[in-house]
Formats: sequence, C-alpha cells, structure tokens
Amino acid sequence: MTQLRYFDNAATTPMGKEALEAYEATALDYIGNPSALHLEGRKAKQELQDCRENIARLLKVSPLNLTFTSGATESNSIVMNNLLWTQKPGEVILSNIEHPSISEYARLLKQVGWNVITINAPQGFIQPEDLKKALTKETRLVCCMLVNNVVGSIQNIAGLVETVREFQKQNGRKIHFHTDAVQALGKIPFSLSDLGVDSASFSAHKFNGPRGIGILYNTDSGLQALCRGGDQEDGLRPGTENLASIKAMTVALEQAFAFREEHFKKATAIQDMLQEELREFTQLSPRSNCSPYILALSVKPIPSEVFTRMLFDQGFCVSSGSACSNNVKKKGETVLSAMLVKPADSRSSIRLSFGYDTTLEDAKTLAETIRTLYREHS
Amino acid sequence: MTQLRYFDNAATTPMGKEALEAYEATALDYIGNPSALHLEGRKAKQELQDCRENIARLLKVSPLNLTFTSGATESNSIVMNNLLWTQKPGEVILSNIEHPSISEYARLLKQVGWNVITINAPQGFIQPEDLKKALTKETRLVCCMLVNNVVGSIQNIAGLVETVREFQKQNGRKIHFHTDAVQALGKIPFSLSDLGVDSASFSAHKFNGPRGIGILYNTDSGLQALCRGGDQEDGLRPGTENLASIKAMTVALEQAFAFREEHFKKATAIQDMLQEELREFTQLSPRSNCSPYILALSVKPIPSEVFTRMLFDQGFCVSSGSACSNNVKKKGETVLSAMLVKPADSRSSIRLSFGYDTTLEDAKTLAETIRTLYREHS
Repeated sequence: MTQLRYFDNAATTPMGKEALEAYEATALDYIGNPSALHLEGRKAKQELQDCRENIARLLKVSPLNLTFTSGATESNSIVMNNLLWTQKPGEVILSNIEHPSISEYARLLKQVGWNVITINAPQGFIQPEDLKKALTKETRLVCCMLVNNVVGSIQNIAGLVETVREFQKQNGRKIHFHTDAVQALGKIPFSLSDLGVDSASFSAHKFNGPRGIGILYNTDSGLQALCRGGDQEDGLRPGTENLASIKAMTVALEQAFAFREEHFKKATAIQDMLQEELREFTQLSPRSNCSPYILALSVKPIPSEVFTRMLFDQGFCVSSGSACSNNVKKKGETVLSAMLVKPADSRSSIRLSFGYDTTLEDAKTLAETIRTLYREHS
Repeated sequence: MTQLRYFDNAATTPMGKEALEAYEATALDYIGNPSALHLEGRKAKQELQDCRENIARLLKVSPLNLTFTSGATESNSIVMNNLLWTQKPGEVILSNIEHPSISEYARLLKQVGWNVITINAPQGFIQPEDLKKALTKETRLVCCMLVNNVVGSIQNIAGLVETVREFQKQNGRKIHFHTDAVQALGKIPFSLSDLGVDSASFSAHKFNGPRGIGILYNTDSGLQALCRGGDQEDGLRPGTENLASIKAMTVALEQAFAFREEHFKKATAIQDMLQEELREFTQLSPRSNCSPYILALSVKPIPSEVFTRMLFDQGFCVSSGSACSNNVKKKGETVLSAMLVKPADSRSSIRLSFGYDTTLEDAKTLAETIRTLYREHS
C-alpha cells in the first residue's frame, strides 16, 4: 500500500489527540444543558464560560465579543445576512478572493437591491488604494479575508481598516469591517484589536480542533442572529451549546498557541525547501507576506486535474483549489484570475497546504515526486 | 454528596458510549474533507454517504431528502427563513405551542408583511378543525411540532396534514407542512411518509447522540439554503461536513431504534408509576396520546421556581419548562396558556423528562421526594 501523505491542511486538519480527549471527557462529564437551571446545567454553563474566557485570553479580546457557531461558514453568514435584512440597501465591498461563504452572498445582495463592489487582489494582495477608490457614502460593509486560502497571501487588514476608518471620519456613518480569518488562527500571529476589524470568523477544524464548531468575533452591537430560537450565545446564535466541541476547540487552540512558533518555524522550513526545490520548473505563489502553511504552484503545461490525480496515485493528498470550491465550478481559478494570475498558470495550479504534523521529510518526498512527474509528463 | 438524578432528558441527553466511540474512531480515521478529491477526501465522502443511507433506512425515507445541519434549531431556521426571502408575503399558520426556534419567527415574519396566524392546543392538542378554519388561499406554510416539549402531547400530524392537503386540492396552491420532531425521534414510533409532512427537524442530542448535529428532512425542491458557501449537502447546508458527529449521530440513532421498544416500555412504566404516585396531590399532564418520556405536573400552590429549587437541592435535575425557554421570559407558561391550562397550574408547573438510562428506582425516589416536599411546604 502507498503511504499516505497529507498536504491538504487548508481544507481540514486531523483532530489533535488532546482535543479528542477533551471532547470525550466533556461529553462524559457535562451531561446538562447549559441553559438548564439545575446542578448539571449550571456546571455546563460554567464550563462554557471558562472556554469562552480561555479563548478570549488567547485572542486578547473580551469574552463578551465571542460567539460560538458551527464554523466559519455560519459566522460569515451571520454577518452577511444582516445586510439582507436591512430595510434600506446600500453598498458592500467584497474582495474578489473571498471564500464562497462570503462571495456567494454577492448574488443574493444584488437581488435585494445592494450595490456590490468587488476589488481585485493583484498578485494576491488587496490594495488600500483600490479600497479607498471603492468607498462611497453608501458603503455599509467591507469584507476582506486575512489569509487567502488559495495562495496564502496575508492581507494588510490593518491598512485596509485604517483606510475605512479615515473615510468614515469624514463621512460620519459607521462601516462594518469583517474578516474571514480561518487560515490565520493558530498559524500566523495577529491581534484582532490591532487589526481593528468589527468582526472575524474562525473554524476549529483548521487548527486541529473538531469540525462543526467555530467562532464569530464581533463588536457590533447591532448584529442580528441568523437562526432564531432560544437565547443562547446572548441571542446571537440559538441552539443547545455544543459544549464537548467547544471544549475540544479551546484545547486545540491552547495547543496551537503553545506551539505556534515551533510550528511556524517548521512550516517555514517546509515552504522554503519546496520553493527552492520547485522554483526552476514551476510558477510559485509569492513568498513574502504569505503564510508559510500554503504554497500554490503551477506545473505548466500540465492541467491541475491531471497533475493532482498523478499525485493522488502516489498517495499524496493535495488540492487543485479550496475544498469548498471543488463543488463549485472553477472557483479556485476565479480567485486566481482576481489575483491577475495568467490563465495558463491558473489552469495548472495546485495547492499544497501544511499542518502541525507535516514533516520536512514527507515534503521532500513530495518535491521529488513533483520533479519526477514533471520530467515524465511535460 | 447528594446522588445526582437526571430527569431533564427533553432538554438534552448524555452522549451514549457507542456514539462517543464512533465519534472518536471517525475523527481518527477520516482526516480528509469530504469535498476534497484525493483518497482521504473520497473516503470521507463515502462514509458521509453511508451515514446518510443508514439514517434514511431507519427513517424509511430517501437519503436524497436528508440534510445534515447543526441541529433542529438550524433545521427549523432553514425552513422558516425561506419565508423571509419570499418576494410576496402570504400567510403562515403556527401552532401556539412551538419551540422558540419556530415561534420566534412570528415577529420577523410580521415585520416583512406576513400574516401570522397562531392556533391554540386545548389540553395540549392542536385540533384539525381549528387548522381548517385558519387556512386561506394565502397560506404558504403550516408548522406544528410532533411531540410537544413541555407536556409530551403527540399531535395528530397525519390528520393536520390531511386537512391541509384537502384544502390544497380545492385551491391548487401547494402549502408546505413542517414539523419539529425532536422529541419524537428514537422515542415514539412514527413514519415521516405516513405523516405526509414536507419537512421535519431532528437533533442528535435528544437521542443520546452528540450536540451540534441534526437533520433536516425535506422533500420541497424549492427550499433555499440559510447559510451560503460551498456546495455541501447539495447546496442546502454549506460548511465542512462534521463527519465525526454525523457518524456518532448515526450510531446513536441505530442504538435508539434497536432498543426503542424496550426503552419505550421502561419509560411507560416510569410514567405510569409517577402518574399513580403523584395523582392525588398534583395536577398532571394528560396520559393518552402523549409521549411516556415527558411528564408535566403542578404542585399547587408551590411556584415552579421554588419547587424545582427544592428538588435541585436534593440532587434532582428537573425543569420548570424547556431549557431553551429558561432564557426567554416565562415561555413555558405561554405554551401552557396556549393549552388553556389554568394560570395557577401553569405557575407551579414542573417538567420531568426521562431518557434511555433513567431507572424506575430513581423515579420512585423522585416520587417520594415530591410527596415529602409537598407535605412539608403546602
């Protein structure tokens, strides 16, 4: 049997041992509904609050600004849906490299009368000047991801937020700035308060936590719930709280923060080695201001579908775009075209993404395999 | 230390051993994203499909009609939100004893121009005649839960659906019938196709499965997604699939079905014993056409808050309404008033709810404790 080598950590990561143990212990020990008033309920509520405070401490924000959701797709949807419910449509600015959980709202918003402005990300980076030009008195929301999931580019969110705040100062009306930060948390260092965003989304399964659980960071008191029901999560996210997953996510995040520098160094070594090894015959995603955890490359003239399948056959798990977009037609390509990448490059683009468990040795084997396949097939 | 006796299974149930083992095994064995095209992705996709087919087999429906969600609150919200997005508002009929994840939509729907008709449930049961009177040519949706979460009354859904279908036959336009069936699944026998509903909601944590996962059964091809994003769950519920929880839910449901008759008999014995023991000094919820898993009682003149706290102090976990409504002011009381229960009874109402693990012995201790407390305090 071919040995499995997993290079698709931007799609999802394996759940860590400590997180899994925390899930199990919490499921066994906390049988009450945190909304119940009896002993088991109050015990569960306390644990829920402890998790929120621990995560808040790691993120250096107030626990009052953290809402547990089923993941970043829901967190993004909560923010985006608020626009749909606004009585008077205005203008929204989306970067052209957003995840489908943001970009798919463009059509819906247009339907109900919103003006949706999209801005490109030349070579992977959204430019504050471009955002500045797009802002108008009607702008209500600006949406820009922190780390792009296709090429790993780290956006200058602080700069983009500053552009928005300056415009705001002149025009009075508040503009909500939202960032999808799933590919950043536990991987690259950042501070939500330094970035100055109004809201941000996270998914636990991107940092070795469980799937089906995530966070919405939000400081906008006007935000309305997407689902309606009980008054859980201060009314912003009803439904019985998934305490075992929340605890497992907390543990996973604690682990991710405890080993962040170590993991970052390893990912950097892997990224640098691959850039070095593959440079000569592939087109590579930029290195500076990029997450070391993601590397996009084009092995021209071999199309992505063909090359990824050859790698699958050798036991490698890689992606030809984001997993969420494999179902959506040619989405990764669209994101790359928004980065003004040449069509030929985007058609043969594959994504390698590293996790905490990825070894330099496996990455070397991958590099050799890519080189061999390239020689045989180009 | 006081021994803990858990009688709040309608709020949430402890996760079963087999379900927990399934969660762990799946989290370890299936590391890929089901949307990914590589080996790990395809393996995860196959497992997801197997779970869907196994659940479909138990529910005797097509797997194509099952969508995995984060729980019944989300399932209900998907259905209810579709009304908010309709271009032309019409009329919606909600029973007055719905869970907040349905009833909280009344206000929102009214805001966007819907006519919201609510119907009472005298003595706990919605009457087909009342529904018949409420139906008009503008009716687009009827919403009625299968088993009420406060008193356990099993609604005549087949009769209510028939009333709707007959009206439809005369008036042509399709009316969507939705049922929130969280308190029914794994507890009372029912068939979705015999009931004839268009959609139904379920939560795994009500049948010893994990929290944060549930099902939307839906046969209405016009239903739109609530969250937007990837094309997971046939586009109806985007976000990386929570495979470990889905597998654990599948196992929990298999267990619930395998032991359903046995569990039902035990719950019936517990219910009958309590009815017998408490009858003489309490007002009890009806017995016929009710789930044996839920018993509401009033120990007049002691207010619910006082009596539940006395029981908490003795180690019992009981509820003064539904857990989801403890956050919402006096919700349980509202549901009881919709059942035309006398205000004095509703103010002293407490809910006992049994699970697969509840023992007759513990229930007997509870009955004795209630009797003693009543004697001391009334």
